[in-house]
Amino acid sequence: MRVNGKHMTTIWVEPDGWSIGVIDQTRLPHEFAVAHLRSLEDAARAIKTMQVRGAPLIGATAAYGICLGLREDASDAGLAHARTTLRATRPTAINLQWALDEMTKALRDAIPADRLGLAYARAASICAEDVAINQGIGRHGLGLIEAIAARKGGGRVNILTHCNAGWLAAVDWGTATAPIYLAHNHGLDVHIWVDETRPRNQGAALTAWELGNHGVPHTVVVDNVGGHLMQHGLVDMAIVGTDRVTARGDVCNKIGTYLKALAARDNSVPFYVALPSPTIDFAVSDGLAEIPIEQRDREEVAAVTGRCRDGRIDTVTIVPASSPVANYAFDVTPARLITGLITERGVVAPEASALAAAFPERAAAATAREAAE
Amino acid sequence: MRVNGKHMTTIWVEPDGWSIGVIDQTRLPHEFAVAHLRSLEDAARAIKTMQVRGAPLIGATAAYGICLGLREDASDAGLAHARTTLRATRPTAINLQWALDEMTKALRDAIPADRLGLAYARAASICAEDVAINQGIGRHGLGLIEAIAARKGGGRVNILTHCNAGWLAAVDWGTATAPIYLAHNHGLDVHIWVDETRPRNQGAALTAWELGNHGVPHTVVVDNVGGHLMQHGLVDMAIVGTDRVTARGDVCNKIGTYLKALAARDNSVPFYVALPSPTIDFAVSDGLAEIPIEQRDREEVAAVTGRCRDGRIDTVTIVPASSPVANYAFDVTPARLITGLITERGVVAPEASALAAAFPERAAAATAREAAE
Repeated sequence: MRVNGKHMTTIWVEPDGWSIGVIDQTRLPHEFAVAHLRSLEDAARAIKTMQVRGAPLIGATAAYGICLGLREDASDAGLAHARTTLRATRPTAINLQWALDEMTKALRDAIPADRLGLAYARAASICAEDVAINQGIGRHGLGLIEAIAARKGGGRVNILTHCNAGWLAAVDWGTATAPIYLAHNHGLDVHIWVDETRPRNQGAALTAWELGNHGVPHTVVVDNVGGHLMQHGLVDMAIVGTDRVTARGDVCNKIGTYLKALAARDNSVPFYVALPSPTIDFAVSDGLAEIPIEQRDREEVAAVTGRCRDGRIDTVTIVPASSPVANYAFDVTPARLITGLITERGVVAPEASALAAAFPERAAAATAREAAE
Repeated sequence: MRVNGKHMTTIWVEPDGWSIGVIDQTRLPHEFAVAHLRSLEDAARAIKTMQVRGAPLIGATAAYGICLGLREDASDAGLAHARTTLRATRPTAINLQWALDEMTKALRDAIPADRLGLAYARAASICAEDVAINQGIGRHGLGLIEAIAARKGGGRVNILTHCNAGWLAAVDWGTATAPIYLAHNHGLDVHIWVDETRPRNQGAALTAWELGNHGVPHTVVVDNVGGHLMQHGLVDMAIVGTDRVTARGDVCNKIGTYLKALAARDNSVPFYVALPSPTIDFAVSDGLAEIPIEQRDREEVAAVTGRCRDGRIDTVTIVPASSPVANYAFDVTPARLITGLITERGVVAPEASALAAAFPERAAAATAREAAE
């Protein structure tokens, strides 16, 4: 997508042919900066400190992290060390695990001398696959937006999104934003309500930044506003991303998604979740009962980082020091509240049978794994 | 309620017998400071800049604002000027309007020389009535908490609240917090989930501060968390305040209240609204259609004020400068989502007939006004 008028992706191989460039997302929206990753440790740190975030981008960074690790040690031990190091950065990220598995599959049977070339090739194809998957999501979601635009006689289509499931979370296009960028590029009049997404403000900081840079009309609102907008007919559809979808279509996503889905149902607003199929975990069914919810640091809630009047980036505390804080990072939206899952293979109903029919090879593999256990 | 171990109210007449002291709530929770109001303009500014906020406290401040205005000019023109000035500070605050009406009724037929004494007396009685009303709300709400505690065998009662309908919003006790303080003072084990309440963070800044000072166990969460807590059985009841209740029980309150009410219904959590009866507007029935929602400044959303690491209070910008922002201040929760309205006369069903039966004199007056128009 575009930044300052130029096309960019979130991760790339530098002209030296081996080191990795990423957009340092911890500086956004205040500053556009690039971080250079030159070692396994650099890659692990980029994931851990959230210079890169978003399931697909974490996977891509981990893939290139394996490459950087193999430059240091291409032996079996070196590969295992790289894998362990990267896996520990975000233990609950299913896409991280998936990318590490893919890299291992591509490398384990090769002799150490061949591994580096194979690793860069597989990492590049992981990135290319992500772009292709998101373009697929975009095409299928575009159909939904076009249908609403047609119903409104070509009028503006207002779309609510939560958190950042944008191109900054992927290699390019994003998941929830792929249909939006495609619709905008096709000349449809789309306007995005951007949920701030406390506590880390990924909506206000990242989604607003990327939509603005690409020229998509948008408005930032605090997380409390979505219900009011829907009550007053100001939202035509919601599209959010997800970290994990269960076999029956329960959706684990950034905390607060469930509240917006409730409001959508109460106001007959279609509520869509966009996802690349690796996000579906066919081994889990009941999202509420089975998905453990990460609790993160107090400081994410108690303090807010931004730009001071004098231009410095600073952090201000907003909660009394003596008040306890709880910081649940995700919630689970039950399948019954979801209109459809926008995947690279089409819009799928949030039901076990529909998901298994759309991704039979993955559903079958999960069944086989369960039987073997 | 207690601050640093001492009992305080939010507004008082200073020892000089005429100037007014208020807690400057814009400095909380970082600094406890008192603002002295010595003129009509001081009072109007205190309301407009939200040094005082909350329906009952705005009413009380407006009442004393009339007193300060009459010190400058006690003529009919002076009274009218004071009234117009104060009314313009927060045009949608029904309690402000109510207090100005009450003061006018007490003063209009008096000769100018008598007005100042009458005004201070009526303002003091408005404050005393507010304390008595909130104590009544507290007693009726206490019964609800006791019933839940009994059902849990004396176990901890977890209560979610939104924004600040605490004693800082009133003269003392608060509305939503009156049952909580009373329960705590009676030795019941209550724990409060405090919604941060973006964009102005009145929950994190004010409710957490006042609960902490009074010694009530509480935990601050961002506004996105309430649904997740309810899904996991961590909320036994919700109690919120309100700015305006319609004749049929629709509730206008701080933006985001509607989302929590939806989550409460989805999880069978009782959802209560605490209010002094002057908050009921019997002239309005359909809250969604009839109550205009105030839109406030961009800066409340785009920037956050707090304490920097070096102790200074500073404001940091969190939204890209080029991104538009919308700042809806309130939303309307339909009566169908509300379990009960906790008033000074008891817990009333959110239905036109029940509200008219509980407050027949006010319902009749509204009907008479409509007939006369």
